[in-house]
Amino acid sequence: MGKGRLEAFSDGVIAIIITIMVLEMKAPHGDTPGSLLPLLPVFLSYVLSFVYVGIYWNNHHHMLHAARRISGAVLWANLHLLFWLSLLPFATGWMGENHFAAVPSALYGAVLFMAAIAYRILQQSIIAAEGEGSVLKSAVGIDWKGKLSPLFYLAAIVSTFWVQWLAQALYVIVALLWLVPDRRIEQAIEHTPG
Amino acid sequence: MGKGRLEAFSDGVIAIIITIMVLEMKAPHGDTPGSLLPLLPVFLSYVLSFVYVGIYWNNHHHMLHAARRISGAVLWANLHLLFWLSLLPFATGWMGENHFAAVPSALYGAVLFMAAIAYRILQQSIIAAEGEGSVLKSAVGIDWKGKLSPLFYLAAIVSTFWVQWLAQALYVIVALLWLVPDRRIEQAIEHTPG
Amino acid sequence: MGKGRLEAFSDGVIAIIITIMVLEMKAPHGDTPGSLLPLLPVFLSYVLSFVYVGIYWNNHHHMLHAARRISGAVLWANLHLLFWLSLLPFATGWMGENHFAAVPSALYGAVLFMAAIAYRILQQSIIAAEGEGSVLKSAVGIDWKGKLSPLFYLAAIVSTFWVQWLAQALYVIVALLWLVPDRRIEQAIEHTPG
Amino acid sequence: MGKGRLEAFSDGVIAIIITIMVLEMKAPHGDTPGSLLPLLPVFLSYVLSFVYVGIYWNNHHHMLHAARRISGAVLWANLHLLFWLSLLPFATGWMGENHFAAVPSALYGAVLFMAAIAYRILQQSIIAAEGEGSVLKSAVGIDWKGKLSPLFYLAAIVSTFWVQWLAQALYVIVALLWLVPDRRIEQAIEHTPG
Repeated sequence: MGKGRLEAFSDGVIAIIITIMVLEMKAPHGDTPGSLLPLLPVFLSYVLSFVYVGIYWNNHHHMLHAARRISGAVLWANLHLLFWLSLLPFATGWMGENHFAAVPSALYGAVLFMAAIAYRILQQSIIAAEGEGSVLKSAVGIDWKGKLSPLFYLAAIVSTFWVQWLAQALYVIVALLWLVPDRRIEQAIEHTPG
Repeated sequence: MGKGRLEAFSDGVIAIIITIMVLEMKAPHGDTPGSLLPLLPVFLSYVLSFVYVGIYWNNHHHMLHAARRISGAVLWANLHLLFWLSLLPFATGWMGENHFAAVPSALYGAVLFMAAIAYRILQQSIIAAEGEGSVLKSAVGIDWKGKLSPLFYLAAIVSTFWVQWLAQALYVIVALLWLVPDRRIEQAIEHTPG
Repeated sequence: MGKGRLEAFSDGVIAIIITIMVLEMKAPHGDTPGSLLPLLPVFLSYVLSFVYVGIYWNNHHHMLHAARRISGAVLWANLHLLFWLSLLPFATGWMGENHFAAVPSALYGAVLFMAAIAYRILQQSIIAAEGEGSVLKSAVGIDWKGKLSPLFYLAAIVSTFWVQWLAQALYVIVALLWLVPDRRIEQAIEHTPG
Repeated sequence: MGKGRLEAFSDGVIAIIITIMVLEMKAPHGDTPGSLLPLLPVFLSYVLSFVYVGIYWNNHHHMLHAARRISGAVLWANLHLLFWLSLLPFATGWMGENHFAAVPSALYGAVLFMAAIAYRILQQSIIAAEGEGSVLKSAVGIDWKGKLSPLFYLAAIVSTFWVQWLAQALYVIVALLWLVPDRRIEQAIEHTPG
C-alpha cells in the first residue's frame, strides 16, 4: 500500500540532494587552469558524496523492491533517513572548503553515521511491518556490511583528530565496500515467489 | 482521473521544498566546532520545518489515497496548498537567522496557518468532488486535529510578542500532535471496498 | 509510446521551476515588519509567476491526457516549452527587484509570449502526430484563449513603456482568463471512447 | 526489474540539472536593456547546455525504452552518466562568465567527452545484461554518431587554444547532429515483438 509513492518521493529527494551538492562548487573568477585548483578539495568531496548518495539510492531501491508492506512507521523511518541524507550537501561543502580539516571531516562522518543508523531503523521497521516470513529479513541475513559501516565511521571521527587523512581513507574504504551491489537481496527475491 | 500525475507533481514540489530548506544553512568559514554554533538556530528551525513538511507529505499521501475523484477545483486547491508550503523555506530561514525573534516567528506561524487552511480547502474540495458516500468524508470524521491546529498557530502568533519562546513551544506541540499517523483514514479504507 | 515518462519529466522540470522561484526571495537582515516591505514587489511577482506556472502545468496535464500518440517532434516541442518556462524565474526575479520597471516588465512579457507560442507548437505537434480524428484537435476547437493570450502579452510589452502598471494589469487579466479550467478538453474526452 | 524506478530517478536528476543551470543567470542590478547585455554569453551557453541535456534525456529515454533487463552494473553505469551530466551546470557557468575563453571552453568539452563515454558504457552494460538477441544491440547498429561525437569534443578541446570560437562551433555542430532523433531504435522496437 503506497509503496510506489514512497519510492517516488524518496527518488525525488535523493535526486535533489545528489544534484544540489554540485552547487557548492562555485565557478571561479579566473579563466586559467590554476583558478580551478582551489576547487579540487571541494570536487573530491563532491565525488565522495555522490558515490555515497548513489549507494544509498541503490540499496534503498533494492530494499523497497523486497518490501511487501508499508506501514506508517515505515513512512517516518524513511523520512528520518532522508533527513540525515539532506545534511550531506552541507557537510560535504564544509569539509571541502576547509580542505578536509579535522572538525568538518568528523561532522561528515557523524552525518554518515546517523544516515547508517537511520537506514538500519528503516530496514527493521519494514521487517517489523511484514512480520514472520519477511522476504527482506531473510535477504538481509547477518548484514555484516550494515553492522560494520557505523564502526568505521566512528573510527574515522576519532582518527581524524590524530591523523587528518585517516578519516577520508576510511570513508573511501566503506564506499568501496558498498559499491559491490547487495546480491543477497537480489538472490532472495529470485528464490521467493513474488 | 489524473490522480497519479497530481500525486507525482505534489511529490516533486514537496521533495524540492524539503530539500532546498537545507540550502539556508550555509557552510561557515571557520573549521572549529565554535563556527557551527551560530548555525544552531538555523538548524533547529530546519528540523522543525522538515518535520512539518514531512507531516504534510504524509497526510497528503493518505488523503489522496482515499480520494476517488479529482476535479479541476481539486487541482487548484492542491496548487494553493503547495504555494503556502513553498513559502516555508523563506519563513524558516528568516526565523532561524533572527534567533526566533517575535516578528519572524509570527510570520512562520502565519505561513503554517495559511497552509493548514489550504489543506482544509483541498480536503473539502475532494469531498465535494466525490459527492455523497465519499470515503474521505467518513474517514476524516470530526477532524479535531485539523480544526485545532489553526487555533494553535493563531495563539503562537499572538503569544510570541509577549513571551518569545511560546510560539516555538506551540509549533513543536502541534507537530507532535500530527506525528501520530492519521489512522482514521487508513481504517476507513480498509473497511471500504476500494 | 513513452507518454508516462514525458509527463514525469515535465512534472519534474515544472515542479523545480515553480519552487526555485521562491529562492529569489532572500530572507531580509532585519527582524521587523518593515524589513519585509522591500520584498513586497518580489513577492507579488512570485505570486503572479506561481499562478502562471500552475496554469501551464494544469493545461499541460489536460493536453497530454487527451494525447494518444507521442512522436520525436512532440518530445522536442515539449522541451522547447520547458526552455521558455525555465526563464520565468529569472524574468520574475528581475521584474520584482526592479519594482515592475518598464524593461524588466517587457522581458517578463516576452518570456510569457514565447512560452505561449511554444505551447501552441506543442499542441500542433501532438495533433499532427495523431493525424485525422485527433481527440485533442476536436477538444481544442477554435482555441480563442490560446490565440488571444499572445496578443495580450504583446500589448503589455508595448504599453509598459507608456503606462508602467498596464503590463501588470494585462498579465493579471490573462492569468484570470486561464484560471477557469479548460472544460472543452475534459468534455471531449468524456464523449470519446478512450 | 526496477526499470521504472531507474527511469524516474534519472528523470529527476536530469530535470534538476536542466533547471538549476538557469540559476547561473543572476538577475542584473540595472533595469535597462544594456544591463542584460553582459549576460548574453551566459545565456548562450545556457541554451547550448539545455539542448545537450535535452538530447541526453531524449536518447536515454529511447535507450531505456529498448532495454529489457536492468542489472546492478547498469544502475552504476547510469549513475556514472548522471555524475558527468551533473558537472555541466558548473562548466556552463564558468564558460559563460568567461566569455568562452579557451580553458573554460576546453573544460566544457571535457565534461561533454566524459558524458559521451559514460553514455557508451551505459549502452554496453545494458547490451551485456541482455545477452544474445539484445533489442538495443541491433537497434544501435554501427552507432556512428556515438563514435564520432567524442572525436569532435577532443577536436574542440584542442582547437580552442588555437582559434577560440572553433570549440563552440564544434559543440553546436554535434548538438545539431543529435537533434535528429534516433530513428534506428524506434524502428527496431517496432519490428520486434515487445
